[in-house]
Amino acid sequence: MSEIRPIEWANGTLKFIDQTRLPLEEVIVEAHGYLEAVDAIKTMRVRGAPAIGVTAAYAVAMAAAELDSSNRDSFLQQLSAAGVEIKAARPTAVNLMWAVNRMIAVASSETDTSRIKDRLVTEAVLIEQEDEAINRLMGSHGKDLIPDGGSVLTHCNAGALATAAFGTAVGVIRASWEDGKRFKVFNTETRPFLQGARLTAWEFKKLGIPSTLVVDSAAGMLMHRGEIGCVITGADRIAANGDTANKIGTYTLAVLAKENGIPFYIAAPTSTVDLSLATGDQIEIEQRSQSEVTEFRGIQVAPEGVEALNPGFDVTPAKYVTAIITEAGVARPPYTESLNLAVRSANY
Amino acid sequence: MSEIRPIEWANGTLKFIDQTRLPLEEVIVEAHGYLEAVDAIKTMRVRGAPAIGVTAAYAVAMAAAELDSSNRDSFLQQLSAAGVEIKAARPTAVNLMWAVNRMIAVASSETDTSRIKDRLVTEAVLIEQEDEAINRLMGSHGKDLIPDGGSVLTHCNAGALATAAFGTAVGVIRASWEDGKRFKVFNTETRPFLQGARLTAWEFKKLGIPSTLVVDSAAGMLMHRGEIGCVITGADRIAANGDTANKIGTYTLAVLAKENGIPFYIAAPTSTVDLSLATGDQIEIEQRSQSEVTEFRGIQVAPEGVEALNPGFDVTPAKYVTAIITEAGVARPPYTESLNLAVRSANY
Repeated sequence: MSEIRPIEWANGTLKFIDQTRLPLEEVIVEAHGYLEAVDAIKTMRVRGAPAIGVTAAYAVAMAAAELDSSNRDSFLQQLSAAGVEIKAARPTAVNLMWAVNRMIAVASSETDTSRIKDRLVTEAVLIEQEDEAINRLMGSHGKDLIPDGGSVLTHCNAGALATAAFGTAVGVIRASWEDGKRFKVFNTETRPFLQGARLTAWEFKKLGIPSTLVVDSAAGMLMHRGEIGCVITGADRIAANGDTANKIGTYTLAVLAKENGIPFYIAAPTSTVDLSLATGDQIEIEQRSQSEVTEFRGIQVAPEGVEALNPGFDVTPAKYVTAIITEAGVARPPYTESLNLAVRSANY
Repeated sequence: MSEIRPIEWANGTLKFIDQTRLPLEEVIVEAHGYLEAVDAIKTMRVRGAPAIGVTAAYAVAMAAAELDSSNRDSFLQQLSAAGVEIKAARPTAVNLMWAVNRMIAVASSETDTSRIKDRLVTEAVLIEQEDEAINRLMGSHGKDLIPDGGSVLTHCNAGALATAAFGTAVGVIRASWEDGKRFKVFNTETRPFLQGARLTAWEFKKLGIPSTLVVDSAAGMLMHRGEIGCVITGADRIAANGDTANKIGTYTLAVLAKENGIPFYIAAPTSTVDLSLATGDQIEIEQRSQSEVTEFRGIQVAPEGVEALNPGFDVTPAKYVTAIITEAGVARPPYTESLNLAVRSANY
């Protein structure tokens, strides 16, 4: 395929690439009801904040399809209950809540109950199409931040697989590359789930962009040696002041970048900005299973009974973030102003 | 066993725990000639700077045993050639060169050729015994640096398995614990070889010290949240100015510690100090196989053909190091003076 599209909607069924089986196998899985879509999010077969948002939108449409819409109030009540279930799939990426809320609002605003189910499918398709358009806009806004002849480091997977298409951080790298710039690309393997080794390296290979894989803890040495020109990652939730929750290890990369005088960028749609949170201290951090750390594909690596702590995300304080690339442009500090403006200009 | 001793010398044979098979299996392997000992170091079945030094000392004794000692000059020449081979096993840990040089010097100083082979065995046994004594001294010097009621983070494995017995950084933690202090212990898994998950977690379990395992990239978040009272690691080579080569990721932890106002300690014997190098820039960093990053126990995790960079070590500039614990005491900045003093007082 020329464009990586991890999610596809066809005749009431959601098809998605099972990201737990990449890069060795490209397996397309079908979710027939909204609970199967919720399960795909929970098990990280679909992951990445924007992709979770798109999947959640289709999940609301699938939930609606299963309901009797003849009684509008009862329909909306049941849809809202399904929305609560969908939102509980994962706690940190706010795009999940954003997409469900947008779908429920559309349902509530539709007075013609005979049209309501179709209207929800249309809205989910729109969210998916918008996501790709937004990512291409971010690429165009951010591409000149990648230094021609220099180098860039990215973490986890903020590529097409994390979105409807094109990607956020990887999208910016791709846009810069397609613009004719040439630079070295490094990406971290991203323990424990190895999104970098499994997914981002796979995407760069498909894009024909040469990349070099390193363990997470080697990024510091590369920065200290002057081998990294800038760092760019995605985000799972950004507070009003610019504090950013993203994959565990992002905070570390941001501190290392600051210490070595390297710009640190975030690329994320405005749907990732949560203006209801003043700072990142209020962002809920998902604690994932210990076995992701103590086992590798079912093989025990740590001694039996050893306790592990497995936070899925960390919060990078805004002071470490050089700029936040959104579809509305490149936001710079003070973020309380620039992000507010970005969110308002995106919701025209 | 009550004390973990990774290396045992018995009747001309070197026995060692195969550390690549821990923690699931405790397999004792025998090296019958010095080339098998060199191979054990190369394949990291024996690893950790002091343990490599002890193994290298026995390797020299084993090489000597295979030689005709009737002609002293020819014997010394061949022993020296074997020494060059042994020193080439791994490039970064200076204890390897230190131990071989010490053994060759002993051989050269022995004028009675009939005694020379026994003398080398005696010296290797002495190096092993000294190493344990040195580690216990480091424990006693460093134990009060671990805050009672606080917490400590260690990286990689600087425990008994990395030494003759007792350990360096883990030895300090153990000495503090045995002194009655109670604190939380965190240890990183240490990609790509997982020495933390496989070896350090195993040692803490045997010692009865509760520990919590985290992926390398989660250490930053813990520090930022105030959950780490101090960081302590071992070292593979320390330059005269205190710049310290240690397992990849150590530099990152040191930067994070500084950024969060947390003391960062190194525990290493003076045999790890290389006064011939003015700064860490001159330390050779071992580049290991890409497959350690792209595969896991033979299972491909990254896409076929993806390039990986796998530096085994990084160099932490002295400015990030709060103190260096040696058998001669706790060295503080300026290290050019304090380390020089430590090395001279140790070589009394």
